[in-house]
Formats: sequence, structure tokens, C-alpha cells
Amino acid sequence: MKLRIYNAKILTKDGIIDGELRTEGDRIVYLSPVSTLDWQDWDREIDLHGNLLVPSFKNAHTHSPMTFLRSRAENMLLKDWLYKQVFPAEGRLTDEDCYYFTRLAVAEYYMGGTTFCCEMYGHTEAVAQAFEDTGFGAYIGSGIFDFDGGYDDITRRAEELKSKIDKMSRVKYALAMHAQYTCGDETLRAVSDLSKKFSLPVMTHLSETAEEVASCKEQYGVSPVKYLAEKGIFDLGGTGFHCVHVDDEDIRIMKKLGVGAVSCPCSNLKLASGIAPLKKILDGGVELSIGTDGAASNNALDMFRETYLATVLQKYLLSDAVAVSAERMYDCAVSGKAFGLEKADGLYIGALADMAVIDMSAPNMQPVTDIRSNLVYAGGRQNVVMTISGGRIVYENGELTYGEEYGALLEKCNAAAERIKNEI
Amino acid sequence: MKLRIYNAKILTKDGIIDGELRTEGDRIVYLSPVSTLDWQDWDREIDLHGNLLVPSFKNAHTHSPMTFLRSRAENMLLKDWLYKQVFPAEGRLTDEDCYYFTRLAVAEYYMGGTTFCCEMYGHTEAVAQAFEDTGFGAYIGSGIFDFDGGYDDITRRAEELKSKIDKMSRVKYALAMHAQYTCGDETLRAVSDLSKKFSLPVMTHLSETAEEVASCKEQYGVSPVKYLAEKGIFDLGGTGFHCVHVDDEDIRIMKKLGVGAVSCPCSNLKLASGIAPLKKILDGGVELSIGTDGAASNNALDMFRETYLATVLQKYLLSDAVAVSAERMYDCAVSGKAFGLEKADGLYIGALADMAVIDMSAPNMQPVTDIRSNLVYAGGRQNVVMTISGGRIVYENGELTYGEEYGALLEKCNAAAERIKNEI
Repeated sequence: MKLRIYNAKILTKDGIIDGELRTEGDRIVYLSPVSTLDWQDWDREIDLHGNLLVPSFKNAHTHSPMTFLRSRAENMLLKDWLYKQVFPAEGRLTDEDCYYFTRLAVAEYYMGGTTFCCEMYGHTEAVAQAFEDTGFGAYIGSGIFDFDGGYDDITRRAEELKSKIDKMSRVKYALAMHAQYTCGDETLRAVSDLSKKFSLPVMTHLSETAEEVASCKEQYGVSPVKYLAEKGIFDLGGTGFHCVHVDDEDIRIMKKLGVGAVSCPCSNLKLASGIAPLKKILDGGVELSIGTDGAASNNALDMFRETYLATVLQKYLLSDAVAVSAERMYDCAVSGKAFGLEKADGLYIGALADMAVIDMSAPNMQPVTDIRSNLVYAGGRQNVVMTISGGRIVYENGELTYGEEYGALLEKCNAAAERIKNEI
Repeated sequence: MKLRIYNAKILTKDGIIDGELRTEGDRIVYLSPVSTLDWQDWDREIDLHGNLLVPSFKNAHTHSPMTFLRSRAENMLLKDWLYKQVFPAEGRLTDEDCYYFTRLAVAEYYMGGTTFCCEMYGHTEAVAQAFEDTGFGAYIGSGIFDFDGGYDDITRRAEELKSKIDKMSRVKYALAMHAQYTCGDETLRAVSDLSKKFSLPVMTHLSETAEEVASCKEQYGVSPVKYLAEKGIFDLGGTGFHCVHVDDEDIRIMKKLGVGAVSCPCSNLKLASGIAPLKKILDGGVELSIGTDGAASNNALDMFRETYLATVLQKYLLSDAVAVSAERMYDCAVSGKAFGLEKADGLYIGALADMAVIDMSAPNMQPVTDIRSNLVYAGGRQNVVMTISGGRIVYENGELTYGEEYGALLEKCNAAAERIKNEI
């Protein structure tokens, strides 16, 4: 697929370029204020009429099939919610359920300008298949934990999963373990060994709640970051999801070992977990990305809202209206760097052709002043009029364009959600 | 205008009713699961195909013409921003500028399901006229302060403004003073007297920042709430905008005197003012409404985002995931009660015909579980497919339907914003 996109405002790190961008396969191959005539065999020409082309969001932490728990059993205490609703409901999920609930999540991602995610969930092949079938990009792991069995079970399962998933085109296996508090010594040994065997960094929930950190310190005398580092989990780097309660020493360790941080401010607020010290994390030189977490605890999969909150909550937290700039946080929301994604951090030749088109005539984009700040502080999913994932147009003017039978999908999802509700 | 809206999910306080709603003039005149055939001379029949009809948002605190400062001069300290950007720029505004910048704000309100606001700004007749010409509902005042002159100047101007504005149909004069810290004794005396003369409560910015409260206590030994109460400002009740730093005694005074509170969480975060104690305010029996504040400090005029944050920030603030329910906060966002609006707090016979239609097939509204929670936690402006203001359809399927020449409006707004930028 070759696309020619012209009459565009193109958001680059050097500012806005009025001009033309071309893609071939999943890459950007041309970006210039000038339209040359040496390249005419495009599959589609798109006149943006002055609308804005931006890099798509990369959702750096999510559990996509959890759309089935969206706004289910609200206003419960965390433990009741987890043990009486989430876990029993998850126990009823089938591969087929997860496949369709993931397709529902993808519809939401695409409509909001997101084309890539870092995913952790069970029924992992089914979830990966849903991404593959919709052209969505993903790094995906199962979230290894003690319930997966012993060293050999974990190793065998990870190898099987990796070999299946790595055959896909835009989906790649990631070595993901659930969390320090759900992984005992044998599990940690298996994960650390797999990391070396696969040459992969390890992704994990990390210091999400104060209780988690306190409990780890009580048991082992050190923070979860330090504990996992000592266990060799981060020998090849890694990614920590949430990082709400990391301290200065944790940040130094993360920087030294190449562990990126992912912030999910909406989930952290709604579950009353706290506000992550993102300015400290950034100033400490740790790669930061932004994620939504699952729909069960968010409840939207909306990267605009996350990026906005990641920015303004630092102002609140530090009582400093200039704590972190919108520009800097916007870069974190599109790069995917904290989970190891490369060439996704902007629009330039050679970068991934993962993009969104923003309607510049929408009232919240007017008058036109500082566009990047405005995207963060005033932008929203209503402004997305086109999404391009891996060089393919997947959403355009309100319609999903990758062959999704959307009505049938909603029927399947509602029937499955209802069945699960009745079973627990 | 008479509308028949059928095949609707109608959100009422008693739950969702699948049925039909009819309007006549600016009121709801019929609401039932049953379609009777005794009323057929409607101007328009609308089949909602199972989509959701909700009460529109009532934006309880805003400065609509401030769209001209949206995303202008970001990342500055509050004082620099105010004194080097906002005040000099505001000094260059003409009536005509304010008229068009307000029309731009109305476009944004309507597209996001908001039909009514409580407005405070200079060039007040021009702003009121923009609301009137677009069918938008408003309570509007000038924000009286010391710069308006002495007792007689203030009184004369208020009388003139009230008599002009009260001739309008959906726009009503409100007695608004800027804030305790910009109003000396003579101004306060004038406002208190005007309140009795007009039989109107007084609206004002109130305890927005910690500095404001500290300064009032230092000068007068009491909080701004208590100080204004002692000056007779709240003898007929009133409305306090922001109320970030009200304490238990303030809340008791507000309850006793009938002073409602308006929360603007986005502006309060972005300006690092803090998080208002909304649970305390609600539990103290004070009427609470939600507002956006102006686009200069927000930067969106998005009541979905405000309502979401009003809810989840309490969970964070109180470390309690069940601190305030989404249902309760949603009611605050639609009622307008804190600024004295009546019959706007839900869909029922006799209530204002101010409504929005939500696309239930959007992925973030699926699967269908707890609809009201989902509106707050997952809803967004992309879900609004129709807005009805005072019984008139003003927005439908992406188009403003009240005769706005939108392209020309954007040109006027950009030219004015550019002119002002060059003048300062």
C-alpha cells in the first residue's frame, strides 16, 4: 500500500510543516513542503485540506479484553471489586470472548487515534490474533505469575507463545510478568532465564500502590524495583507499568538498568492509587510512555485523556503550573519508547506510518495558536477524522475501514458479557 | 417548535426508560414508554434507533470569550501569564471580538452536549447577544470589581445591563462580582444593595487559591466566605466559583446562606490551584454544579472531562475508590442548581427541553452495562450526535443547525486573535 497525503499540516519535532507525506508499506518514505512528481503510483491520494497529520498514540499499558468489564460493578472497594467481580468474571472468559472483546478495544483505539499497544493478558494467542486480524500493532505477553505453574511449565508456555506470536506481522511477543507480589522465587528465576534466552527485556506491573511497596519492603527490606533488579529480572532492561510509588533510588536503578516507566493516570486516580512522580521520572532520564490500563479500571481507552492528565496532574502535584510541558508529555504518548518501540516517536522518513488526522476546524482547535499544546490541553477523540495503522487507513470519517462487521461485533460482545454476568 | 423523539433510551432519575419524549417550546411535555396517538402535529419526528437521550450539561462557570486565549502562551507562571498575556490581551478586545469569540465557544458547547452556562465577562451585552443569537441559555453578569468605578457607577451600569439583558429570551442577567480580593468596601456595598434591589443572589469567584484565602485571613482575620457573608453579599444566597480552599466552617456558612458551589477541576489542576473538597461540600448539603472556567486556563470547554475529573479526583484526594459516585456527580453536571437554574436537573414532564443524544453504538459505550457510570467514566464529546437547546435542534450529526456560518466565524476569530497578539 502506497499513500500520498497532501495539503497537510504535518506535526514534526521541528515544528509544523505545510506539505506532503508519503508512505510505502508500514513506513514513511517522503516528507516535504514540496510535492515532487517522480512518484505517482500511489494506491490512494488524500487531500487533507489543511488538516493536521500527527503521529498516532502508542498505548503503553493495557489489558484490551477487559472491555467486557467496562462500567461493571462501579463504586466498590478495590478488594471487593477484584475478588467478587473481576477475578470470577475473568475465570469465565473463553478464547473466543477475548478475541471479540479485543476487537472492540481496537475499534475504540482506532477511533481515538491509537494504533499500537503494549498488551498483557491471558488467552494471549486469541488476543494477539485479534490485533493481527485488525492490523493493530502490539507487543504482547501473558503476564506470567505463580498460577502458571513451575519453572518448566512457565518456560514451555512462553516458548510456545513466542513462536506462535512472532509469526504475526504487526504483533510481537513480549516477555511480561504480572508483578512482584504475584511471582515467587521460582517464577522470577524462570522469567529471568527466559529474558536471557529470548534476549528480551521484562515488562511488569511495578509499584502501582503504596500497599504493594510497603509489603515488599516489609518482606524483603527493599522496594519492588530494587527487589526485581536483585533477582536479575531487569538484566536486559525492562518496562514498569504504573510506577506510582517509585522513589529517587528506584528511579536511579531504572535509569541505570534501562527500565522504562509507563504511567496510567486515569486508572491510578479511579482506583485511588495516587499520582506518579512523572517529572522526577523524566528528569531522572527514564524513558516514559503513557497507557490507559484496562477498561475495567479506567473506563475509557482514551489516550487524549491520559496525556492531558499526565501533564496537568504534575502541575497539581508539584504546585507548579510549569512543572511539565505539554510538548514533552505528548512525545511520551506517541513514542512507545518505554516498551521498546522504535521509529514511532514522530513523523520523519523511515518512521512507522502510524498516524492520525486531526480536524483543525473543530472549535476546540480554534483559534490556531500552539498546536501541540492545544492537542494535549484541549484535544479529544472527537477531533480524530482518520487513523492510519502500519500504512493502512483503518478509520475514516466515522467508519472503521478494515472490514469490521461492527454491528455483529457488538452483538457478540454484549451476549458474552451477559453470559459471564449470569454465570458468576 | 414541537419535537417527537421516539425509539429512545431516556435517562431519567428513575432509570432508563425505553420510549418516547415530546417537547413543546422550551419544555418537555410528554415522556412515556408508550406512544399515544393523540398528538401528531409535531414539527419533526426523530427516530433515535435506541440511542440515549440525556439532559444536556449546564456549564456553571465560564468566561466564554476567552476562547481567544486558548493555548496562547502556555507554560508560564500564573502571574507572568496574567500580567504579561491575559490582561494586556483583554485590554484590546472589542465588543465585536467578544461576540464572535463567544459564538466560537457556543459551537464548542453544542458539539459537546452543553446548552446552558453561567457566564461572567466584560463586554457583557455583546456576549449576551451572542448567546441570544445562537439560542444558547445563559445567566450572565459582568464580574463587578473596583475598576468599574464608585457606588453610583456600579449601580447605574448594573441597572442598564439588567434591563437590556432581561429582554432576551434564553439569557438572563445575573449579579456577578469578580472576587473578594478585587472588591473594596464601596464595591461590596454597591453589590449588596443591588442584590436586594434586584432580588438576586450574588455570584463570585470564591476561595480559588490558597494565597487568596491566606491573604484575606491576614487582612481581615476571616476566610473570604465569612468575610463576604459579613458584608451582606450572600444575604439572598449566591454562588461561589471554584471553592478549592473552603473549610468546614465555610461549608456550614454556605449551606446556611444558600450559597452554591461550582467546581472547575481542569482549570484548578492546570493552574496548580488544588482539588476542591467536593465530597465535603456535597455532604455538607451545599448545592454543587460543575463548570469549565474559560478556555484560557482549561483549555477545552468540555463538560465530560470536568465531570469525570470531579468524580475521580475525590477518589484520589480521599484515598477512597468509592468517595463519590459517578451518578451523583453527573446530576451536578446537568442541573445548574448551584447558579439557581430550575427544572434542568433531569428529563421529566415540565423540565427544560435541553438535551443531548448519545451514540450508544460507540465502542466506549459498549458493552451496555451501567449507562450513567459509563457516561461519566468513559463518555466523551465524540459520543454526542445531537444537541437540543431550549427545544430547538442546534447540532446534528456533526453540523451546527442554527445558521452558523462556521467558516466565516473561524476567519473572524483567527483574524481578531492575530490582531490582538500583534497589538500587545
